[in-house]
Amino acid sequence: MSAFSDAEREAVYRAIFERRDCRRFLPDPLPGDLIARLLSAAHHAPSVGFMQPWNFLLIRSIEVRAQVKAAFEHANAIANAQFHGERGELYRSLKLEGIMESPLNVCVTCDRSRHGPVVLGKTSQSEMDLYSTVCAIQNLWLAARAEGVGVGWVSIVEIEDLRQILALPTEVVPVAYLCLGRVVEFPASPELQRLGWLNRVELEPLVYEDRWGRPSSLFTENPLDADDPSGTKTAP
Amino acid sequence: MSAFSDAEREAVYRAIFERRDCRRFLPDPLPGDLIARLLSAAHHAPSVGFMQPWNFLLIRSIEVRAQVKAAFEHANAIANAQFHGERGELYRSLKLEGIMESPLNVCVTCDRSRHGPVVLGKTSQSEMDLYSTVCAIQNLWLAARAEGVGVGWVSIVEIEDLRQILALPTEVVPVAYLCLGRVVEFPASPELQRLGWLNRVELEPLVYEDRWGRPSSLFTENPLDADDPSGTKTAP
Repeated sequence: MSAFSDAEREAVYRAIFERRDCRRFLPDPLPGDLIARLLSAAHHAPSVGFMQPWNFLLIRSIEVRAQVKAAFEHANAIANAQFHGERGELYRSLKLEGIMESPLNVCVTCDRSRHGPVVLGKTSQSEMDLYSTVCAIQNLWLAARAEGVGVGWVSIVEIEDLRQILALPTEVVPVAYLCLGRVVEFPASPELQRLGWLNRVELEPLVYEDRWGRPSSLFTENPLDADDPSGTKTAP
Repeated sequence: MSAFSDAEREAVYRAIFERRDCRRFLPDPLPGDLIARLLSAAHHAPSVGFMQPWNFLLIRSIEVRAQVKAAFEHANAIANAQFHGERGELYRSLKLEGIMESPLNVCVTCDRSRHGPVVLGKTSQSEMDLYSTVCAIQNLWLAARAEGVGVGWVSIVEIEDLRQILALPTEVVPVAYLCLGRVVEFPASPELQRLGWLNRVELEPLVYEDRWGRPSSLFTENPLDADDPSGTKTAP
């Protein structure tokens, strides 16, 4: 297969740098052919031993979503109590999900029993099937950005609640509960950064050479272009 | 931020559908600015509570790589014994890593202690930091495809061996050990499919509506274009 053109390469980086975790959605339904393309993107993720351990539950039912929303509220009440003072006030002011407003929820699961007990590449690291499922989620997220669709990952919910609400078999793990929909905008920077929760950390100190803690000269020798893939730009 | 053009959107899908797990590398070193772009792509992954829990160890040392290769061989001897008969013969014929031939190995880790014990979005699902790290890996993998760089994920190695060889602290989990380099080609289909290990499963039966096991009409109503995002095409 041929090389990517410069324009194609830039488009891939654009999706990576402009992807956002979205919590505010327009109610417009997503066309079926668009949803099919997003799931196909997810389905083409790498998987350990070509195991393809994922399933996709498309959740439109208001009743089911109300149950998930209640499970979120239960989990979030417990989370709330762990953030105190100013931090607690900021936490309680954050919008952390769009379960009811978004036109589509998708639960991406991992069937840990698929293709039997022995899977190529999973013999030393049993969590590889979960990681494969996360690769599928990230594919879907990037494809959605390119389609102009926002995605938000709701992780403040107990796994056992999701399992019960969605009738998941024992061997199936819900890896991500996602909200999808059109959005007013993809902001230039992540919301948690804009609101002062945490800043983007510098990349350079996160990179080591040959072993933990040995500094790398990569960025000294190759400073990132602040206007492009550094992603430190905040202007739209 | 503006909408993607059709050409940009197609480029994102192209990276997703043409990404491959590579095990055969050319020895050419990768330029530093290219490596910096790939790490920047990884660093712009979503992370729970904007935690950014990852580090990147760039491994070029032949001595360190020889230790990882030995750890792979140890783990693979154990794996070998779990595949019998024709399946065992096929397993033993597979090339499963390119640790010594590739010009660069990268270990992507997750620091589970980053930003303290309480992290927004991780209070119900403690594994979210590991999943964030996998999102970073998939970003790197797709950016690498757009750059014409092959990536292979070596999972047949014990976590404790990696931890010891790379001197990782207790709170740091090695999530992926990757081989990177130029490749002769990105084949049209995954190697495990071409060699008859497993086929790509059909996507349609993996999709449910509102709860586990309830069939979806999504693909009946929106059949995937076999020439494009279905990815079922095998011609180059």
